[in-house]
Amino acid sequence: MYNPKIGDSLNTLDTPSMIVDLDQMEENISKMMSLLLPTGIDIRPHLKTTKSPILAAKLIAAGCKGGCVAKLSEAEVMVDAGIDDIFITCEIVGPPKVARLVALFQRAPLLRVVVDSLDGATAIDSALQSAGLTGLQVLLDVNVGQNRTGVPPLSHTLELARDIARLKNLKIIGIHGYEGHLQHVHSRAERETNCREAMSKLAGTADLLREHGFDIRVVTTGGTGTAEFCATCPGITEVQPGSFIFMDTDYRNALADGQRVGFSNSLTILCTVISHPEPKRVVIDAGLKSLTTDSGYSEPKGLPGVRYQDEGDEHGSLIWTHDGFDLKVGDRVEMIPSHIDPTINLHDVYHAHRKGVIEEIWPVATRGKVQ
Amino acid sequence: MYNPKIGDSLNTLDTPSMIVDLDQMEENISKMMSLLLPTGIDIRPHLKTTKSPILAAKLIAAGCKGGCVAKLSEAEVMVDAGIDDIFITCEIVGPPKVARLVALFQRAPLLRVVVDSLDGATAIDSALQSAGLTGLQVLLDVNVGQNRTGVPPLSHTLELARDIARLKNLKIIGIHGYEGHLQHVHSRAERETNCREAMSKLAGTADLLREHGFDIRVVTTGGTGTAEFCATCPGITEVQPGSFIFMDTDYRNALADGQRVGFSNSLTILCTVISHPEPKRVVIDAGLKSLTTDSGYSEPKGLPGVRYQDEGDEHGSLIWTHDGFDLKVGDRVEMIPSHIDPTINLHDVYHAHRKGVIEEIWPVATRGKVQ
Repeated sequence: MYNPKIGDSLNTLDTPSMIVDLDQMEENISKMMSLLLPTGIDIRPHLKTTKSPILAAKLIAAGCKGGCVAKLSEAEVMVDAGIDDIFITCEIVGPPKVARLVALFQRAPLLRVVVDSLDGATAIDSALQSAGLTGLQVLLDVNVGQNRTGVPPLSHTLELARDIARLKNLKIIGIHGYEGHLQHVHSRAERETNCREAMSKLAGTADLLREHGFDIRVVTTGGTGTAEFCATCPGITEVQPGSFIFMDTDYRNALADGQRVGFSNSLTILCTVISHPEPKRVVIDAGLKSLTTDSGYSEPKGLPGVRYQDEGDEHGSLIWTHDGFDLKVGDRVEMIPSHIDPTINLHDVYHAHRKGVIEEIWPVATRGKVQ
Repeated sequence: MYNPKIGDSLNTLDTPSMIVDLDQMEENISKMMSLLLPTGIDIRPHLKTTKSPILAAKLIAAGCKGGCVAKLSEAEVMVDAGIDDIFITCEIVGPPKVARLVALFQRAPLLRVVVDSLDGATAIDSALQSAGLTGLQVLLDVNVGQNRTGVPPLSHTLELARDIARLKNLKIIGIHGYEGHLQHVHSRAERETNCREAMSKLAGTADLLREHGFDIRVVTTGGTGTAEFCATCPGITEVQPGSFIFMDTDYRNALADGQRVGFSNSLTILCTVISHPEPKRVVIDAGLKSLTTDSGYSEPKGLPGVRYQDEGDEHGSLIWTHDGFDLKVGDRVEMIPSHIDPTINLHDVYHAHRKGVIEEIWPVATRGKVQ
């Protein structure tokens, strides 16, 4: 029976296994906190990255306030684990999901949800009415340039606010405007300029709503690529970074330019060389089901000049062109994910180690919770 | 508590949910069986597609012999569920995995594994020796042109066979040569020609080994795109199709040319429109964590002219340009996966329905089993 335990060496792990370097992870958390806490901003980390109430609790202990999740089914798991100050950042639509929301709100009164349509909000309001519930905290979803969901800033948001204010069981507490399109802009100067521009739209919208009598207490936004800028933009009250805790090659490359504090790749997928079919190519036991490819290929850690390419669901090649290098069947390689969130979602468990000794094992508790 | 049940309507499902049209799935199985069974070939379906012992049992009931899995951890689940005639198609390397193999072989003597190196084979042989076990069935992995794993055909394979024959606890029963590079060749004529060429290498290698005294009983290969050709290639004894049961857009497009029997897309991901931010764009609740993108984008079923693009982990846009069409917040859309195997691996459960009524619920039992 294969059953990794605390105190085991990483060498005893079967592969592929998801491993976390605790020293590096703790340094990432500490760096983000020292960047943000002095500004007075609320930090509500996005838990769609880690998918773990244990990691959520560590972030709260470091100074964060609650957390964000993308989906209601993630929120259910967090609340079950005692993390009950949760903001769900995807619109909640459809009778089955609205029914789940009502049930969750009954045991998690701090819950916050986002709305961007009167139809969506009305369905939630009616379901609360039927259940004899009221006071669900909602944030209006504002499109600050990502062009995904949300209503346009200023007058359109005001119009939505007025519509929703007529619904008795929803309580507008703020606005949400995620600038996802800016997280990976490589030039730091360009990222900061565009971010401040987007934030001024968001803060301006909050001001407009306040002028019309709305009690806008929360103006929330920001990811790993922009949180430090958002934190000093006037009118922003809360940021939502998630990926900084582990990073990935995509964020590493994006944030390389003029980075104030460097976050390191603290999470890797431990793999084994299973075949050596060509002199300068080996095959590892990780393909599309272990390493995502939507943001490019993963990279082998500490092996400059060696590149990865997937070879289907369960295989990947490591390929090099330089002489004097080789890998052999049985060698182990750590792969740095290219996109951290969906990679974690492929795995069931984290093996957190310090200098090669497993110190903690965390389930990916909301893995697969897409509803 | 959200808990879908047999007899429920699909309308009661929360989304995203993975759903299977049983009539279409059964027709796909029946068509593949009627194509292959009359040839006398053994059909050992690749269970890395369905990841379900329940579906493995349905395929066996339809005439298949056992199944293939990619990884040892998948085999453990299948054996636990009573599906014990299993061929693991990835090389098994490294002390933790070899230890698991030995443990599994003790309770699953029909197990078959693949080897492509003397080092890999020796490690398995030694572990068997230490455990007092012998007779593990191995197949030599032959590279028939995919250039992934495996040794070259003919003399190289013979050399490996001779090396491995010296190991006391392994029993060579055959050769395995997967022509993965041909599965998606769009021209049927080209696919067939290239397949027959690859198969003649594989069968020729089997003959060479027999000439040198090896008892090669199994010559196994083939996927959904080539199984019908392989089945009539002289010397091939077994085929391994997997995707035909559900199909995907990639296979549908590849097999469109001159298809003898048409397999249909029997599996979809049921989604909900959660936002309508632009006149000709809506957002559904399925992004990278529900629909894979490695083989292109998924397609909305029955909505010609409407295309999908992912908008991050948990959102996707549906976009159209024609007039007179609209979707509204709350509408439901079925998405046809672009690559079936890794898509299924993102979900926990199948909801199998007939004409919209849920008839069976199957766990994706080996979801995430990448070890």
